[in-house]
Amino acid sequence: MSKAFIAGTGMTAFGTHPRRSGRDMFAEAGLAALEDAGLESEEIDEVFYGNFIGTVSENQGHQGPLVAEAVGTTAPARRVESACASSGLAIRDAVRAVRSGEADVVVAGGMERMSNMGTAGATDGLARAADDLFEVQSGVTFPAAYALMARAYFDTFGGDREDLAHVAVKNHDHALVNDHAHLQEEIAVDDVLDAPEIATPLGLYDACPISDGAAAIVLLSPSYAAERGLDTGVAITGSGHGGDTMALQDRRSLAKTPATREAANEAYTDAGIDPTDIGLVEVHDCFTIAEVLALEGLGMYGYGEALGAARRGETRRGGELPVNLSGGLKAKGHPVGATGAAQIAAVQTLLNGTHPRSDAVDDDVTVGLAHNAGGTVASASVHVLEVMA
Amino acid sequence: MSKAFIAGTGMTAFGTHPRRSGRDMFAEAGLAALEDAGLESEEIDEVFYGNFIGTVSENQGHQGPLVAEAVGTTAPARRVESACASSGLAIRDAVRAVRSGEADVVVAGGMERMSNMGTAGATDGLARAADDLFEVQSGVTFPAAYALMARAYFDTFGGDREDLAHVAVKNHDHALVNDHAHLQEEIAVDDVLDAPEIATPLGLYDACPISDGAAAIVLLSPSYAAERGLDTGVAITGSGHGGDTMALQDRRSLAKTPATREAANEAYTDAGIDPTDIGLVEVHDCFTIAEVLALEGLGMYGYGEALGAARRGETRRGGELPVNLSGGLKAKGHPVGATGAAQIAAVQTLLNGTHPRSDAVDDDVTVGLAHNAGGTVASASVHVLEVMA
Repeated sequence: MSKAFIAGTGMTAFGTHPRRSGRDMFAEAGLAALEDAGLESEEIDEVFYGNFIGTVSENQGHQGPLVAEAVGTTAPARRVESACASSGLAIRDAVRAVRSGEADVVVAGGMERMSNMGTAGATDGLARAADDLFEVQSGVTFPAAYALMARAYFDTFGGDREDLAHVAVKNHDHALVNDHAHLQEEIAVDDVLDAPEIATPLGLYDACPISDGAAAIVLLSPSYAAERGLDTGVAITGSGHGGDTMALQDRRSLAKTPATREAANEAYTDAGIDPTDIGLVEVHDCFTIAEVLALEGLGMYGYGEALGAARRGETRRGGELPVNLSGGLKAKGHPVGATGAAQIAAVQTLLNGTHPRSDAVDDDVTVGLAHNAGGTVASASVHVLEVMA
Repeated sequence: MSKAFIAGTGMTAFGTHPRRSGRDMFAEAGLAALEDAGLESEEIDEVFYGNFIGTVSENQGHQGPLVAEAVGTTAPARRVESACASSGLAIRDAVRAVRSGEADVVVAGGMERMSNMGTAGATDGLARAADDLFEVQSGVTFPAAYALMARAYFDTFGGDREDLAHVAVKNHDHALVNDHAHLQEEIAVDDVLDAPEIATPLGLYDACPISDGAAAIVLLSPSYAAERGLDTGVAITGSGHGGDTMALQDRRSLAKTPATREAANEAYTDAGIDPTDIGLVEVHDCFTIAEVLALEGLGMYGYGEALGAARRGETRRGGELPVNLSGGLKAKGHPVGATGAAQIAAVQTLLNGTHPRSDAVDDDVTVGLAHNAGGTVASASVHVLEVMA
């Protein structure tokens, strides 16, 4: 398939911004992406916006036209929602729009604000990404759901909490130089193991924080990119989307994520690459176990083989396959609807040398991947990014 | 552009179903559409789902995977939200997916349930389709917003409440034979004029009801339709999407809807037709004035000329251009997220002779149009449907 050129990316600092409105945060991210691209608001053909819970937290539906105005346009806009995979899918739809030639310049991204909901409100809000009838009303919160997945993984393949702790330590370390990260705090394995348990076997440091923030990218059609001399830099060359049952109870195994596998296979075929071509990845590590499940779902490791990767150093900076150099959801933060776009922005800047962790990317790395998941991976998007020489 | 073949359509009865869950209603509509298409759930490649307020009314986000399961698949699914235009845009995205060849069989549709929210809850919910900061907090509800538009129209072009009353009378008359309609009740002009005023100059009968319901369609790619011998019947041949400022205060005129014009022009160009080729339309008549604004935005009438159309009989069954033969939102009902899909289903069945009002469609009519609007037309979708004979 043809390429979707990334002309620019932008994001707010991720953190706790209860007094900043969604339109304000998306304006910052979107206008930064336009400035990075050297394009004007008047050139935007379409806006794709990912958001999960703004109907509640912002008291605002119909956010598409609202955030389009925030970046200076009344171009057609829509909101795409798939829980934590909202902006991954917004970008997928944006990729379709520019590849088909129906749009030349699109802004795609997302935003979330949950700190204004309070901890109980945010927990209740996040639970709406699970099956209300069959999971939430039975008491399954998200930490509980991922704890069930971790226990199933340990039961199936072996391993323990200490293996997971290395994932948290690694991602905190990666975020130390990233000033946009929510958590810039060095931690040790013992900190993770000594932290309060939130849902056996997961402790506080196995979970990402509840963050506010926005991220956006500007995508160009191949013809427009060529015409403007912007067909360089980094392009999205593969896009995939996978699905699974909503509730965990309907899955064959809680230790595998077939939606990730489905999305990855589609993206690899689309880009014409193998997993072995990929030199860095950003995966959806809402909990430490999620990074492990993602790496196996993506085919970067065989099933049961990714748990020790962080401990062995393979996925750390300086390792063979650096994973979540941005800090991941775990330390960079996880403003739900912004996460998928922030991952694309991270991979693009890591590949083009402008990310604060680009020094951890080997010179011969030209292909990266971003993996975004919704709920307990009932939906997943995968994008392949390549340097265009 | 290539065609997206409509293999089947389905919908629930629209009405008051507070005890039916969203997944239950979408299952009925989606499975009916599959049965109408003669296809199995296993053949679905992707699901596009429109819903506005389910995060609140169903306590459920991430509805894509949930309703995909309801129609028997774990295929990739996403929710598209653009207020009352949610499923019009879900269908637009589905059209892109099959036209590009990325998917062969897609289910697209939508659902809304608001009767369980109570009248105050539903009014509060619907207000989230307007700008919370600049409109809702100033007291602008949706009846008030459309009343402002009606007053601006009267100020600009002349006309009065009685002209609008004829729109209500017409659409109620059209719905009399439609057993899926929320309101099957014959009304007279005096009933409309004597009804309680809800926001000057609009009365109770100028507004559509708050409805529950679901609607779905099955779309096929051109190659798959040809392979299966299903490249007959009715196809979507044009698709358009328009945008405008979110808040009324930022518009140049409240008497025109440029988002509708933008969407229409795109759809006409896409289909290679003129407005004069179109023999029937379903437009977004959430209020009587909205039908008038839509017909002018679509270029079916010049600005200021559509107000008298219902009174003159032109848009009634038997008239030159029958409008909302299904009963429209006004009488068929308006389950927000289902409306755009229900309009497509209505146009398809009116064109292929299976709608209870098909007898009002002249034999030489082969082109129809569906127009779906979000909020005060800050977003709009237009689709052109043609008989493939």
